[in-house]
Amino acid sequence: MQVRVVVLGSSGGLPTPERGLPAVILEGGGWIILMDCGEGTQRQMMRAGYSLCKKMKVFITHLHGDHVFGLPGMIQSMNLLNRIHPLEVYGPKGLKDFIEDTTISTMSEPNFDLSVFEVEEGEIFSSRDLVVRGVWADHSRANMSYRVNFGRNQGKFHPERAKELGIPEGPLWGMLKSGKSVILEGGRVVEPKEVLGEIVPGISVVYTGDTRYCERVVELANGADLLIHEATFGSDLAERAREEGHSTAEDAAMVASSAGVKKLILTHISSRYPDAKILEDEARRIFQNVEVARDLGAYDLKS
Amino acid sequence: MQVRVVVLGSSGGLPTPERGLPAVILEGGGWIILMDCGEGTQRQMMRAGYSLCKKMKVFITHLHGDHVFGLPGMIQSMNLLNRIHPLEVYGPKGLKDFIEDTTISTMSEPNFDLSVFEVEEGEIFSSRDLVVRGVWADHSRANMSYRVNFGRNQGKFHPERAKELGIPEGPLWGMLKSGKSVILEGGRVVEPKEVLGEIVPGISVVYTGDTRYCERVVELANGADLLIHEATFGSDLAERAREEGHSTAEDAAMVASSAGVKKLILTHISSRYPDAKILEDEARRIFQNVEVARDLGAYDLKS
Repeated sequence: MQVRVVVLGSSGGLPTPERGLPAVILEGGGWIILMDCGEGTQRQMMRAGYSLCKKMKVFITHLHGDHVFGLPGMIQSMNLLNRIHPLEVYGPKGLKDFIEDTTISTMSEPNFDLSVFEVEEGEIFSSRDLVVRGVWADHSRANMSYRVNFGRNQGKFHPERAKELGIPEGPLWGMLKSGKSVILEGGRVVEPKEVLGEIVPGISVVYTGDTRYCERVVELANGADLLIHEATFGSDLAERAREEGHSTAEDAAMVASSAGVKKLILTHISSRYPDAKILEDEARRIFQNVEVARDLGAYDLKS
Repeated sequence: MQVRVVVLGSSGGLPTPERGLPAVILEGGGWIILMDCGEGTQRQMMRAGYSLCKKMKVFITHLHGDHVFGLPGMIQSMNLLNRIHPLEVYGPKGLKDFIEDTTISTMSEPNFDLSVFEVEEGEIFSSRDLVVRGVWADHSRANMSYRVNFGRNQGKFHPERAKELGIPEGPLWGMLKSGKSVILEGGRVVEPKEVLGEIVPGISVVYTGDTRYCERVVELANGADLLIHEATFGSDLAERAREEGHSTAEDAAMVASSAGVKKLILTHISSRYPDAKILEDEARRIFQNVEVARDLGAYDLKS
């Protein structure tokens, strides 16, 4: 199993020539997930080699402009490119109105199938090989932190084993695939594990959006392979971080350490840190395996 | 008199890694004018060395997303930078709602003084040293083409000459400055030209936004120093240009030639022309002094 993480934008609310507005791609198992969609995301996707026409799910953490102003333009471009695949966008309440208002007023209404899901805490999306869960983080406006688990919840089905056991193709195969035991005509009970391969460990990535240090995020990130946590400020501005609903690099490192994640990437870096090494150093005193995101930086996770 | 033109984005509706969405800066006589504000404009302004905090007027040609999706993010960034100066934004009907909807829904309402003017044809702004006029061009949605005249409408007032002529400082000076003759106590009539310097020729720039070949734009551009005309397509797609309300490079050159402008810049280049030289060549057969815009390209005009 392999997941590629590509940071498209790593700035805080104010972009700089070096850091664009927030967006991160998670790609694995055939899925392309976009986390947040700040202004400029569509061009960053092109630069990173991601077509706007492919299947993709977008998860928006919160409705502050810097996390969402790239959506209307991306939708307009998808129209121009004659996108065929549906697009699903998930995010807090208000997202539907935002997309409708911006696309209708500019004649950019999607001419492909666009579904907008206004999310609540808990399991947000679940399929055989992708599960997305969310918790409300602690920001000045409702902000959903997301955990994406890539990987099959069960081993692969082996039809040749089923045939050897004399199980006829049909509904019994379906039951075994979905983890249920079946009884054959002669009375023999077949357990799913007899026809399913080993479960390959999945890969899980947590993306916080904007938040103060938050225990719910610690729980969400428990044991994750990668935590992408905001770190708007350094310890010099810890009080301001608290006031404005943001984290310091140390806060992010505390979350990583408490949650026992494997790796931490700091993002949403304030423009006042042109050299963000200071944030990395502050975090490293608490959590070793940390780095500051850079735009178009790619990180490969393997299990 | 000098005017600097900086192209921030020169793409058509679909950006490319090389060309960003439409926006052009016109700077002269202390004025900073932004024409259109496609997604990504704020970062391009930073790259071109234009602060988001300075006095600036924004003119939007039309409410298609590619010309306007950079506005909400620019406003949010101006908030974060604690902009003090007011900002005036001009554009077709619907602009006010667009700005209100996008900024309110994302909590980016301007905390500085923002005035939105929904424009009609004719003189749109006029001061002693800047005049902006507009005509409706010919596009699929109401599109205003703008002509910006930089330069004083009258010569500079010379107080020392007024004193020599025995004109007392006060209301009489004001009348002379505004071009009216005055009568002194002894009955002597003083004409404005006696106390005003020579009129320095101004510089005029026309920016079309999206349009088919349009006679109203030809009139607007009459004798201009620079015409920045859209040229979405080459002659291979002349029919499609007509259908979709766009121009070919040849159309743009015809406008430049008929209007007798000094220089033509082609912009709003479709992503299907990665090498836009072909458009330049097609235009040059009709109008010699032409070039294709490139992002962050700067052009200095002098009079």
